[in-house]
Formats: sequence, C-alpha cells, structure tokens
Amino acid sequence: MKILIIGANGTIGKKVAQALSTKHEIITAGRTSGDIQMDITSAQSIEAGFKQIGSLDACICTAGTGYYGKLETMTEENVYSGIRNKLMGQINVVLIGQHYLNDTGSITLTSGILSEEPVRNSSCVAMLNGGINSFVLAASLELTRGIRINVVSPGLVEDSVERYGASFPGIDPVPMNKVVNAYIRSTEGAITGKILKVYA
Amino acid sequence: MKILIIGANGTIGKKVAQALSTKHEIITAGRTSGDIQMDITSAQSIEAGFKQIGSLDACICTAGTGYYGKLETMTEENVYSGIRNKLMGQINVVLIGQHYLNDTGSITLTSGILSEEPVRNSSCVAMLNGGINSFVLAASLELTRGIRINVVSPGLVEDSVERYGASFPGIDPVPMNKVVNAYIRSTEGAITGKILKVYA
Repeated sequence: MKILIIGANGTIGKKVAQALSTKHEIITAGRTSGDIQMDITSAQSIEAGFKQIGSLDACICTAGTGYYGKLETMTEENVYSGIRNKLMGQINVVLIGQHYLNDTGSITLTSGILSEEPVRNSSCVAMLNGGINSFVLAASLELTRGIRINVVSPGLVEDSVERYGASFPGIDPVPMNKVVNAYIRSTEGAITGKILKVYA
Repeated sequence: MKILIIGANGTIGKKVAQALSTKHEIITAGRTSGDIQMDITSAQSIEAGFKQIGSLDACICTAGTGYYGKLETMTEENVYSGIRNKLMGQINVVLIGQHYLNDTGSITLTSGILSEEPVRNSSCVAMLNGGINSFVLAASLELTRGIRINVVSPGLVEDSVERYGASFPGIDPVPMNKVVNAYIRSTEGAITGKILKVYA
C-alpha cells in the first residue's frame, strides 16, 4: 500500500512510520520535515500535499496539538488555536483526503484519552479529542467507494512520559507498540467507524 | 434559584423554562427574544448578557445549531459555522459564565445523541456534540467555588419529529418531559461532570 503519514516526525508518527515501512510504501509529511510538507492548520497546504501525491491507499494523521491551560483563564482564542490545529486540521484531512484516496482506502486520525478521562488544564484538548471521535463515527457512515475511517485514541504513551507525565498523575503509560498496532489494525484491517482506545 | 435559560424560546428551552418557572426565578435569553438578548456566537454578547444579570445561581444553555450536510461536499466553512455556534458558543457560556455564577451554582449545556449514534449528514453536528460532552467532563474538574457543570444529550425529541424525523429513520422519539427532567436533575441535583443521555 501507498501510505501517507502526516506528523511522521512526531512521537507517535515516527514509530508508526517505522513499523509500516517494512511492508508498505510510506510517504512522510510534516510541517517542516518529511517527504512532503503539510501544515494541517491550512486547508490549502493539505490540498497541495494530496495533489502532490496524486493517489494513495491510506492516510494516517498523527499530527495536531491543542491548548493546555486553566479553565478559569481560558480565552476564546486559546480554544480556537486548538480547534484550528488538532480538530479542524484532522477534519480537513478527511474532507480533502477522501477525494484522493483509492477505492477501499483508509483514513486513521488521532484523538486521545482526555476525551473521556480528562485531567486538569485539559478542557480544550479533551473537547478536541471528543469532537474527533464523534466526527469519525459519523463520517464512517458516508465515505464512499469502500473507504474506511477510524481514530486511535491513545493514553499517555511511553515516549511522552518525560514531557507530559506530570500532568497525568497516576496514569499508567501505554507501550508504544500497542499504540502502533492500533494504527496498523485500522490501516490494514477491515474495520471502520471505530474508536481504537489504547489506554493501557 | 435565579436561573438563566439561553435558548428559552427553542423547542427544548421553552419546555425547560416552563417547568422550572414554577419553583424558580427564570431569566429567559434568546438571540431576538426573551428577557435579555444573547447571541451565543458572540463572546461580547454573552458577556453583556451576564453583566446585565449581575449574578445568578444556574445557567442552562439549550441554544446552538450546527451544519447538516453531506460529508462528500462539506467545506471547512460549513464546519466552522457550526463550531462558532453550538460548540464555541456553549464553551464561551462556560468560560464567561463561571465568573458570574454564585457559589455552588450550576451550568447545564446541551449536546445530542449524534455524538455516539450518528446518522447521514451529521458529521459536523456529531463532532460538535462530542466536543461539548468531553469539554464538560474536563471542565467539571476545574470549576471553583463548588460550581457544577453537566450536559444533557437528548435523542430526537418528540417536539422535533415533524421537522427532523426524516433524518432519523427508525429512531424512537424521546418524550419532552424526560428531557426536561434531565435539565432539572442537573440544575437542582448535586451531580457534576455528567453526560445525561436521554435517548429513549
């Protein structure tokens, strides 16, 4: 399969690219790195990236960030900064990517455990993740030509413990290989409309 | 209790206002109707409304719409029209309203069944609903002074069957009194961080 991985230089994307590259042709994309440049906060950039590739069998998006901060002082602009990135960015990958994917292709997005197990300062990111999950459930009903869509919802992954562990007191880190497996299951498997929760 | 109902002239808001008015002081708000005018797509309008009220014990938001349409032709702007309304509108009600609520006050938002039981043409609204649900879970961890927050997630309500029934084939309508009860439970009860699903 010809597989595009958006965010292929990130913590999760790196490992997913590595695992899938043994069996598939991988095209890596990132804002400033990768085979092609794609900035998911820009629909134009996403469209240009897909155009450059032409056609593909699968698209995985592990890119996207959101605002972390106190609810008490959170502003509309804080929330929109996350919306433009992890939420609208991934939705645009679907809205645009659906027209470039080959028949029976697949799309895999990324949400996260905060959608249902939030922690302090996570109201914005929890919302982004919950929105992505529900979007995927709904989109799976409408994609045509046998195209599938799923979302991987990882917990705190092992490789992020150093950076984010303090924000997730008492949460068991998730082994990277289990997270990678969820992307493989979505991409190579037959499932669609699934939220693949990898929380432990 | 002094209770603000935003969207009090809508299908659900109307019945909620009616039920709560027997025991409480109700302030109704709507874009063009009600005791005060509030347009949830504008943070300025929301802030002005809360300022006008001064202080309150509970806030219920039943306002908010989103884009319904095919995934295949959905545009970024379609999605943003919903984000600005039902999603960011309700989030702004929380971000702003938290500073006006009395101690131990409560906030109740509205999402909907599409977040987990989507139908055709609902990708945008499903996403908005899922985002609201997760935002509420997270926000409940951080609200101060004993302020509570919940979200009512109604199915297709009886009073909307004529208008929306065709989009929900085979879905049993939900009696209005059960939906109203969920808002009462959230407002008068002790619960916080709950998604009150009223699907049947």
